Amino acid sequence: MTIQLYGFWRSNAAFRVRVALALKNLPFEEIDVDILSGRQFDPAYADVNTEHVVPTLVHDGHRFFQSLAILEYLDEIQPEPRLLPIEARERAYARSLALVSVADSHPLTVPRVRKHLAQAFGSDPVAIASWCTHWIREGLSTYERLLTRQAAAPFALGATPTIADICIAGQIALAEVYQMDLEAFPKLGALGAHCFALPAFAGAHPFKQPGYQLASERR
Amino acid sequence: MTIQLYGFWRSNAAFRVRVALALKNLPFEEIDVDILSGRQFDPAYADVNTEHVVPTLVHDGHRFFQSLAILEYLDEIQPEPRLLPIEARERAYARSLALVSVADSHPLTVPRVRKHLAQAFGSDPVAIASWCTHWIREGLSTYERLLTRQAAAPFALGATPTIADICIAGQIALAEVYQMDLEAFPKLGALGAHCFALPAFAGAHPFKQPGYQLASERR
Repeated sequence: MTIQLYGFWRSNAAFRVRVALALKNLPFEEIDVDILSGRQFDPAYADVNTEHVVPTLVHDGHRFFQSLAILEYLDEIQPEPRLLPIEARERAYARSLALVSVADSHPLTVPRVRKHLAQAFGSDPVAIASWCTHWIREGLSTYERLLTRQAAAPFALGATPTIADICIAGQIALAEVYQMDLEAFPKLGALGAHCFALPAFAGAHPFKQPGYQLASERR
Repeated sequence: MTIQLYGFWRSNAAFRVRVALALKNLPFEEIDVDILSGRQFDPAYADVNTEHVVPTLVHDGHRFFQSLAILEYLDEIQPEPRLLPIEARERAYARSLALVSVADSHPLTVPRVRKHLAQAFGSDPVAIASWCTHWIREGLSTYERLLTRQAAAPFALGATPTIADICIAGQIALAEVYQMDLEAFPKLGALGAHCFALPAFAGAHPFKQPGYQLASERR
């Protein structure tokens, strides 16, 4: 089984896929698409992903897009360790937790949105960063309330990490990219500590990617 | 089995759940939460949905949130007719099509985003509507390209509608709420015609809801 991942250090959606691949012990090769320089709009990449976004997963010659669809796919083709609970109600809860970041918070912070804010409203970089931190904080606050209401340690649904934890850890990594303070979110902080204690999460963190280290050296 | 749906005529995510319930022949009672008047922030509703969004599905006393998680849940507890294909690769494609609207286009147009644009950038209603139609068009264009690349008639994955068609039809309904012209998207138009020829889709359309008709009379 050969797997390639078109990703980028800063892509939160690529982070999610990287964690899932590592948890399932599936080796992969990552191909960088520099979304900060707009390489996702290159004609060659448009052939790979017609939505002009990362990640794209290539598995046995077939292409997969949308991170949550990729996580579900990996869980179906390689069921162990499971990334979704077995019982329907718990599966729904895991998916809804995942979607708080995937469908509500993270989409408001991606490069094409930041670019369009500048174009449509003439927003400056400070206003755009403040827009992003506003929506990241909304997601963090929702997670904190949900984890307070229905606590399950050490992970969101119990003893092992699920797609919920992958997306919550992604939301935390997003906050870290924006250098946000997480003190107001103690439940989230505890969950994040459990996640990032695992090599699969730690190794997938944006700051651990070669592309980030290159970018830091250039600064 | 008793089912309640907290929804609203204009909520695209509520549309998705309404279609799925109708396709599966599951009777439900809909409770209106007027998201245009901000009723999703009422303390009583915050108890129902801590994310302050619609829809929420209540099934046998348990609450479910996030439309895509609800569609998957309904497909698990009531498998016929299936809303997801059987084969893993096809399931991934159905989910990724669904997520183009759920995770990329629709999140940029919801009430809290329109409100924050006005607050953070002082955007006027015309600029906000133009922001929304920009992102709705991005979603429509992605769908048109995907359907051109991998045609499967009459529905996105073949003979019967899946979660992909539900979310694509929702994207079309979103464009209709904004009175957008769909002529540039012929593949999408053909798919939409097949969907809305079915009573489950037609009856779930925003303009067919009692709340819309009330709002129109008041104008």
